Amino acid sequence: MVNEKEIQAKEEHEKKKNLVKRELDYYAEKMQEFGLKSMDRFLKYCPDPSKYMQLGITFAHKDLELVAEAIADNKPWAVISGLNPSGPLHLGHKAIFDELLWMQQHGADVYIPITNDESYTVGKTKSLAEARRIAYEQVIPSIIAMGFDSKKTHIFVDSDYPDIYNVAMDLSNKITLNKAFGVFGFDKKEEGENPGTMFYRAAVQVAQILLPQYEEFGGPKPTIIPVGIDQHPYILLARDIAEKKGFIPPAEMVIKFLQSLKEPGEKMSASNSDSCIFLTDSPETAENKIQKAFTGGLFSAEFQKKFGGIPEICSIYLLLKYHFLDLKEIKKLKEDYEKGKIMNSDLKKMAIKHVKDYLKDHQSKLEDAKKKMDKFLSKTPVKSILKY
Amino acid sequence: MVNEKEIQAKEEHEKKKNLVKRELDYYAEKMQEFGLKSMDRFLKYCPDPSKYMQLGITFAHKDLELVAEAIADNKPWAVISGLNPSGPLHLGHKAIFDELLWMQQHGADVYIPITNDESYTVGKTKSLAEARRIAYEQVIPSIIAMGFDSKKTHIFVDSDYPDIYNVAMDLSNKITLNKAFGVFGFDKKEEGENPGTMFYRAAVQVAQILLPQYEEFGGPKPTIIPVGIDQHPYILLARDIAEKKGFIPPAEMVIKFLQSLKEPGEKMSASNSDSCIFLTDSPETAENKIQKAFTGGLFSAEFQKKFGGIPEICSIYLLLKYHFLDLKEIKKLKEDYEKGKIMNSDLKKMAIKHVKDYLKDHQSKLEDAKKKMDKFLSKTPVKSILKY
Repeated sequence: MVNEKEIQAKEEHEKKKNLVKRELDYYAEKMQEFGLKSMDRFLKYCPDPSKYMQLGITFAHKDLELVAEAIADNKPWAVISGLNPSGPLHLGHKAIFDELLWMQQHGADVYIPITNDESYTVGKTKSLAEARRIAYEQVIPSIIAMGFDSKKTHIFVDSDYPDIYNVAMDLSNKITLNKAFGVFGFDKKEEGENPGTMFYRAAVQVAQILLPQYEEFGGPKPTIIPVGIDQHPYILLARDIAEKKGFIPPAEMVIKFLQSLKEPGEKMSASNSDSCIFLTDSPETAENKIQKAFTGGLFSAEFQKKFGGIPEICSIYLLLKYHFLDLKEIKKLKEDYEKGKIMNSDLKKMAIKHVKDYLKDHQSKLEDAKKKMDKFLSKTPVKSILKY
Repeated sequence: MVNEKEIQAKEEHEKKKNLVKRELDYYAEKMQEFGLKSMDRFLKYCPDPSKYMQLGITFAHKDLELVAEAIADNKPWAVISGLNPSGPLHLGHKAIFDELLWMQQHGADVYIPITNDESYTVGKTKSLAEARRIAYEQVIPSIIAMGFDSKKTHIFVDSDYPDIYNVAMDLSNKITLNKAFGVFGFDKKEEGENPGTMFYRAAVQVAQILLPQYEEFGGPKPTIIPVGIDQHPYILLARDIAEKKGFIPPAEMVIKFLQSLKEPGEKMSASNSDSCIFLTDSPETAENKIQKAFTGGLFSAEFQKKFGGIPEICSIYLLLKYHFLDLKEIKKLKEDYEKGKIMNSDLKKMAIKHVKDYLKDHQSKLEDAKKKMDKFLSKTPVKSILKY
């Protein structure tokens, strides 16, 4: 006689497998649509690719060759990664910053614009000041605590580095409104769309991307921007403007963002606090979130042992993979989980231990990081565009 | 037998008269459409209205009562009048600055944003730097030479006072894109329309208008903006945003701009150098422009004597009226011109004398004005919107 529960478990297994396949198909499709390259060639020739590259988390690129050459020739290059300060950083951000750290260790100057204008104009904070407070009290200390080198890191908060607006004005007549609407899909009639968000996305964001190529920062050089695959059109816009201004079109590196704790295929997002572990969460809060997190297991331990779990959509497995295990450990864990040798409770226990340790360590560094803040803040005025 | 030439002259007279009527009709229509008031009541109660008000050059307003009260009660108020630095000032600008001088003498703090971002993004200059050079070398010295009081004058060049962009960001989420498009009639597909012009008009310009009401400048107070009648919709936008931010909606004073030397109904414009007398023109250049200027006379002196000239569209009469004669002299000149007692050559001779004297005097003051520039430049940071 057929076991009804078993059929149900098999169906769940199949469904979760399909989610993985669908995601892979989506990425493959987008890569083709956007003409992005895989990392294969880079991995073959780079003597020490980052963990994320080896794991396929950083999985696609455009023009990475330019950066590879700069690394090989020991020439200047830069990476730019902006941050919207509407809340504390979470483990999803940490993944990107880890990749930035690898780049800094390979010679990159790291530019981190903290976009309090964006946070406020899109309605994520009540004022410029509130986003500014979050920037200085939470975001910047966390970034510094991750181990960046102040000599090769340029952090600025937009409202406190208004030179960025002059740069944005300097660039903005290289972009037609029509093009901006095309790229960002503005809807004039939508409530959140205002002249500030428009200017931010189509000009200030581009200014942040091209800033390292202005005279004050050493002039044209290879640059790269880590993005999610959906952000590719913004890069295209920046590349187009770069060319019109005599700069080197920025390269692009595509990262799979860390998955939400609540839903497969979604990314950790500060706007849903259950979806992510904030770097400022107490160890207890983090434990709680992990306990309630979505896994790649089945509804019953019995059948999970029989059919195995699906690690690729398991938020806990992914947490461990991104942040806490080395390549060998990850491989083993994946196999064991697929074979049903490891249960969700084991996985969660492991993650809780790692996350708690990490949070304690990170949080213990914040006070010291706050004291060092001044060394990281970029104050270089952009005078070249005003000089007559 | 009918004199054919006489019929022609009568027709020309009629045609020119019609131009005057058409212009008056246009203003009356717009006043009604926009709900603007005439200056009658203000003129009745103000002990010493400006020359422009008495002559109907400043002819309409909205909320001028608020300013009148501030004057009467000796309370703070401000006037804001921006300037696009794409070339030297001309006599058309001088008319507006004369009105600002009257306001300053009646207690107003005068704010003069010099919008080099606008000049550049709309394509009137090749760079921000070029517009900045024009601002410091030509525009600001001319303004100072007109006799403003440094203690009550706040001049700033947008790129050098980027606090204005923070204020613009602070305001921009009170404006929907849809509204901005409605007011400014942006056409996405037009070449000159870019994120910079959009942000400038819909947010930076409003920031300039509301700046005097921010905490740093003494908080909410009556303010007024001198404009041409077509600019009324921009004022409406600023009033709307003012209300949403808890400021006093700015009042509006409508001025008939000085007529072009080349065409009746058109205003002097720097973009057509024959249309205007620049304050930096040599006396000879000015004389030349006046000699070629459009008058309100007829094609032959004989018939002008018979039918009279039409002063209201005569660029030379208007030049004398705006800048060089007192009320009594203007009245007499108008009558004489209408009666055919004064010929165009007399008028031009008179204008040449006055304009040459004025230019010499003005230009003799420029070196000294350049030295005083620093006293007029506003550097007050706008910290209140960033404070947490």
